[in-house]
Amino acid sequence: MTYCVAMALQDGLVFAADSRTNAGVDQIATYRKLHKFRVDDERLIVILSAGNLATTQSVVSLLQMRLNSDRKHLFGVSSMYDVATLVGSTSREVLKRDAGLNQGTVDFGSSFIVGGQIRGEQPRLFLVYPEGNFIECTPDTPYFQIGENKYGKPILDRVVQYDLPLKQGAKCALISLDSTIRSNLSVGLPLDVLIYERDSFGGGRHHDVTSDNDSFRSLGDAWSQGLREAFAKLPDMEW
Amino acid sequence: MTYCVAMALQDGLVFAADSRTNAGVDQIATYRKLHKFRVDDERLIVILSAGNLATTQSVVSLLQMRLNSDRKHLFGVSSMYDVATLVGSTSREVLKRDAGLNQGTVDFGSSFIVGGQIRGEQPRLFLVYPEGNFIECTPDTPYFQIGENKYGKPILDRVVQYDLPLKQGAKCALISLDSTIRSNLSVGLPLDVLIYERDSFGGGRHHDVTSDNDSFRSLGDAWSQGLREAFAKLPDMEW
Repeated sequence: MTYCVAMALQDGLVFAADSRTNAGVDQIATYRKLHKFRVDDERLIVILSAGNLATTQSVVSLLQMRLNSDRKHLFGVSSMYDVATLVGSTSREVLKRDAGLNQGTVDFGSSFIVGGQIRGEQPRLFLVYPEGNFIECTPDTPYFQIGENKYGKPILDRVVQYDLPLKQGAKCALISLDSTIRSNLSVGLPLDVLIYERDSFGGGRHHDVTSDNDSFRSLGDAWSQGLREAFAKLPDMEW
Repeated sequence: MTYCVAMALQDGLVFAADSRTNAGVDQIATYRKLHKFRVDDERLIVILSAGNLATTQSVVSLLQMRLNSDRKHLFGVSSMYDVATLVGSTSREVLKRDAGLNQGTVDFGSSFIVGGQIRGEQPRLFLVYPEGNFIECTPDTPYFQIGENKYGKPILDRVVQYDLPLKQGAKCALISLDSTIRSNLSVGLPLDVLIYERDSFGGGRHHDVTSDNDSFRSLGDAWSQGLREAFAKLPDMEW
């Protein structure tokens, strides 16, 4: 499994992903799920992936290989909408190629969160379904999750609003990941976090949170402590 | 869907369940999932149910109908272990009867949390799987969940310990239910909460939390507020 979360906030975009891949509990490995495509000063595209690793890797490889080809590619299209379309159609292409003989016993499907900014547009964020169609993030619910999303959702629902500062958004994403890691063995460190400031057209601040990151550990401990304190302060039920 | 949670704590047992049943989002109804069987001053048995409503209702009906029969029944057996066995075998009996023609398109399975105390024993708590086998709660992880369990698990993992007072346990169960209700439409009010004090052999304190329960609403609001405050107090990441 995997857990990825991304936010489209007023000041820019936040992306966060774990890196655990597993086929059963005795076959786990570390694979990055945050992929960055960048043309300096012109566009930044970030793709988070969850689902069948063979499918997601093929999709990302094909997108990468075609960057210098005659086909439509991530650096050639002029809007983030076209980027999402491209990810969706590449995902369908891989599924069509690989899932042909599958009798339905293996799930070949993958989901993607696709976000970034191309000069001339606002920063945009899309969720691409395994079927290749997609939806776009709006200020009413300014985040997307893919993978093992339930444990980490309550904190997002309570904290993430469109006007949340980027730094706070990243912190909330880390808390959401921490809650998921504590409850589900198939989600694990290291984490990739990328913070992109609106109209900066750079590579964003990309952080690698490994298991020896004291700051992340302190954050998780402080959150546990804060939760317990908040619980202790709750009013009694008047039955 | 459904969400039920129960705890076996030092001072006794806590049971909590929502009451929403749904088949799709346009066919929802209220059905209680907490069932009580009691012999005053001698035994209290509580059964929480989740899964296929036809199955769970049949299981509870059969257990009820047989109370005065010659067959093994809930008031005749001498341990909570036998109670769990009885719930498991009755569940298998119903599945065998009803799921025969099913081609695997409908899930007939149900899970049960079975707890209580019979004179001569400690209070005990069991989780009965759809297959009819079961596990017992131990002090290391003193709670069980059935149904839509992920949203409400992080708070349980952080707060519930064997020596938690019963009142606090009930409050934590309500918070866990509140988080689930906020995130999943298929879990809803009213809630059934039952607090059983060890060796009391009464009916326990049974509370009905309806949507006009101000105390529950205040609890949920205070929790949201507490979470936001805890989040605001978190240290910044040192990247």
